[in-house]
Amino acid sequence: MSFDLVMFGGTGDLAWRKLMPALFQAFRHGTLPEGGRIIGVGRDDLSHDQYRALIQSRFEKVELAKRPSAEEFARFAAILEFVRMDLSKSEDYARLAETLNARNADGIVMYVATAPSLFTNVCEQLAASGLNSPKVRIVLEKPLGHDLASNRAINQTVSRFFKEDQVYRIDHYLGKPSVQNLFALRFGNALFEPLWRREHIANIQITIAEDLGVESRGAFYETTGALRDMVQNHALQLLCAIAMEPPINAGADAIRDEKLKVLRSLKPWTQETLKQDVVRGQYSAGTSGGAKVPGYREETGVNPQSNTETFVALRTEIANWRWAGVPFYIRTGKRLSGRDARIVINFRPTPHAIFNSNEGVGNRLVINLQPKDGLELHLLAQGQDNRQSRASATQSLAPVQLDLDFDKRFGSERVGAYERLLLDVIDGRLNLFVRSDEQEEAWRWVEPMLEHWAADTSGPRLYAAGTWGPSASSAMIARDGFCWSEES
Amino acid sequence: MSFDLVMFGGTGDLAWRKLMPALFQAFRHGTLPEGGRIIGVGRDDLSHDQYRALIQSRFEKVELAKRPSAEEFARFAAILEFVRMDLSKSEDYARLAETLNARNADGIVMYVATAPSLFTNVCEQLAASGLNSPKVRIVLEKPLGHDLASNRAINQTVSRFFKEDQVYRIDHYLGKPSVQNLFALRFGNALFEPLWRREHIANIQITIAEDLGVESRGAFYETTGALRDMVQNHALQLLCAIAMEPPINAGADAIRDEKLKVLRSLKPWTQETLKQDVVRGQYSAGTSGGAKVPGYREETGVNPQSNTETFVALRTEIANWRWAGVPFYIRTGKRLSGRDARIVINFRPTPHAIFNSNEGVGNRLVINLQPKDGLELHLLAQGQDNRQSRASATQSLAPVQLDLDFDKRFGSERVGAYERLLLDVIDGRLNLFVRSDEQEEAWRWVEPMLEHWAADTSGPRLYAAGTWGPSASSAMIARDGFCWSEES
Repeated sequence: MSFDLVMFGGTGDLAWRKLMPALFQAFRHGTLPEGGRIIGVGRDDLSHDQYRALIQSRFEKVELAKRPSAEEFARFAAILEFVRMDLSKSEDYARLAETLNARNADGIVMYVATAPSLFTNVCEQLAASGLNSPKVRIVLEKPLGHDLASNRAINQTVSRFFKEDQVYRIDHYLGKPSVQNLFALRFGNALFEPLWRREHIANIQITIAEDLGVESRGAFYETTGALRDMVQNHALQLLCAIAMEPPINAGADAIRDEKLKVLRSLKPWTQETLKQDVVRGQYSAGTSGGAKVPGYREETGVNPQSNTETFVALRTEIANWRWAGVPFYIRTGKRLSGRDARIVINFRPTPHAIFNSNEGVGNRLVINLQPKDGLELHLLAQGQDNRQSRASATQSLAPVQLDLDFDKRFGSERVGAYERLLLDVIDGRLNLFVRSDEQEEAWRWVEPMLEHWAADTSGPRLYAAGTWGPSASSAMIARDGFCWSEES
Repeated sequence: MSFDLVMFGGTGDLAWRKLMPALFQAFRHGTLPEGGRIIGVGRDDLSHDQYRALIQSRFEKVELAKRPSAEEFARFAAILEFVRMDLSKSEDYARLAETLNARNADGIVMYVATAPSLFTNVCEQLAASGLNSPKVRIVLEKPLGHDLASNRAINQTVSRFFKEDQVYRIDHYLGKPSVQNLFALRFGNALFEPLWRREHIANIQITIAEDLGVESRGAFYETTGALRDMVQNHALQLLCAIAMEPPINAGADAIRDEKLKVLRSLKPWTQETLKQDVVRGQYSAGTSGGAKVPGYREETGVNPQSNTETFVALRTEIANWRWAGVPFYIRTGKRLSGRDARIVINFRPTPHAIFNSNEGVGNRLVINLQPKDGLELHLLAQGQDNRQSRASATQSLAPVQLDLDFDKRFGSERVGAYERLLLDVIDGRLNLFVRSDEQEEAWRWVEPMLEHWAADTSGPRLYAAGTWGPSASSAMIARDGFCWSEES
């Protein structure tokens, strides 16, 4: 299958840090379909060879194992081209159309890795040049808007020119092997599904913790914050993968229909729950990796009186038969104790205790997403190590853990998130992309928090860099009689 | 708590190979109650010191880590004594009673590690000398009879002189950490119980495989066979631990009541099931550990036309609400491929397949009992290692395994089976001992197989040493559409 992949923003950050390395990995492993062409688009006046040289020079910053040799790059470069475009000029789109029409590839991918403000314009112009035929697929990077209205505006414009099944909205979390594995785990195994419900689960915790601060992105982050940056997309996608009903098949719409149902079942916010069940935090000076680090308000590009949240913890419920009454806790933030993304399923304790120790300790399934990718199943077993007491071993329980490390099992040479997603776009598989109604539903649920905060002049609670966020986060979960998994 | 432990057969095999080393381990670790005395009983004319020297010399054959230093043995020897007895002479019991009465320990344990033919006589004589007071506990080693009638005769005699709660019938499998762990696993964790039933389990396999032949015990084995030696006791105890309902508490009778219910629920044999669902095997010449080994009929002490079975495979069901229709397979034998005791729980496959590969592969929980002691949970995960195909990882499943190695978790210095059981007798805990009604019910169920074989002149099916038994064993399980776990 021949394809043309047009990369708007072809000289930009995302292109050389993520997209080109991902495409090269697929090329190296022979999974990129033959007969492909990658067309970088940018404002600069570059020849094909100048563009190739630019990309090659940037590969020097890629980790060694994923860096091409000179010979490999030469072969890869043969499918790289460059088209100079001013994205505001219709004649430039016409030239692009000419280039593409001349080749008439089986599929055309428009990867719009530009400033979001250009999305609608690019879509309009592409359509005006006839570049919205059924064989064109358009890839949109986040953020798609900063609230429900702006998101809907973008989606509506896009939908005027492209059918929903031509639009590939990226949430790169969905490309992570560990996140896809959630589907396999739940629906490829008969073992978990009978337990995966309110009768057996006490609570579910989703943590996406970063140890880094805002780094050089202070100005961007000022207008974003943790809720928009992480909760509206990544955390809710994880929640959907955990909570959704079994889809009727593994097709894109079957999966997305079920995710949408979860988002629609999220308990609506009230003034009371907005106060009690949401914690807004911002890091102050502290330590990270052993070094002193500044607070958020001291970061470059940040307003010294900024109320932007760098941390969110929240409690919600899913109002359906499967999950009614089970608290779902989401927590994400910058400058936390470590880089750590995981989902913790806390099962209810045994209904009736017959042993003398560790009564009421529930089982726990931990799905580690990063830095390591694996499963931990926490159980109780007989505490045979207790030589101090003569008590019969059947009377004393001790925690034990079953482990699975996916890197060890499958090798660390796994298909990365962007590689997976790019291959899926090229092959026309929508499973791992977000549908517009999902995205809008997520915004609809997030918006009351944004509004509440805008009206709340008390601002975020400060937490020292290098901690697990404001203590209000632990207090919130403690009200239900639970604690965050790292505290238990 | 002071105690006297009287070891009938105190110079015998079991005493020096198992009981003394176990008692020394408890002594070394300080779990043997202080104020104890161990009284070896034998026919030889030994002084206390001669007996101590004999035991010390035999410790030289114990594995190094469990062998006492000279200083340690000197301390241990201080609680060792010897009493010479002819077990047929009432005056010798009177002398024993004198010795015990003089000290008046809080508890007295009579460990009857003698030929089973002496059991009833020993019991009568002990009672005649007043050594059956409530503070006396009597420990009986298998075999307790060779069929239902003889077992019942022994139990009835014993019950004339001792109350049921004074009688400790040893099945040393129940002392194994891994077997006790079955209780902890099932009833200390909320995770398994909802799955532990016919709705979710396809079949259960219990394998106790030995690689050794009959060794020097040919003459004994001729009168025993695999059914009496392994199935009637160990295998059925494992089956009970797997299949029993949750007991109301961890007390001995609560647990034994539930085990009894399982035994009573075992599907009665019919002429048809005796033919179809039981495989009797006997090893012929083959290889073991790389060396050629003789067949059973060539072993010392064995009748060259012997029909004694060295292998049994059987299929049964448990006729109750939890297990109706779920096949339980039991398999045990000598001279098999390896030393391997394990329980395999095969879960049903997912009810509806949404992935493209490995459909219908069910999950599996493996409980390893020996040589290693641990858990394996076999699941399916996304098959991310498959770079050959561009297929989305969500469409391809691969087997993965969560592991738990109890020796690694708890250290290899674990409390051994006999140590556990001896401490329990001394402390008066009956949980891990077999009640008479359990034992009789097991014999009742086993007896039709014995009778069927006695009438069946075709004899056992031969299998080459070093294999997994006669092919009829695989054929039996294949009739249900399953296979033994090592073949899958």
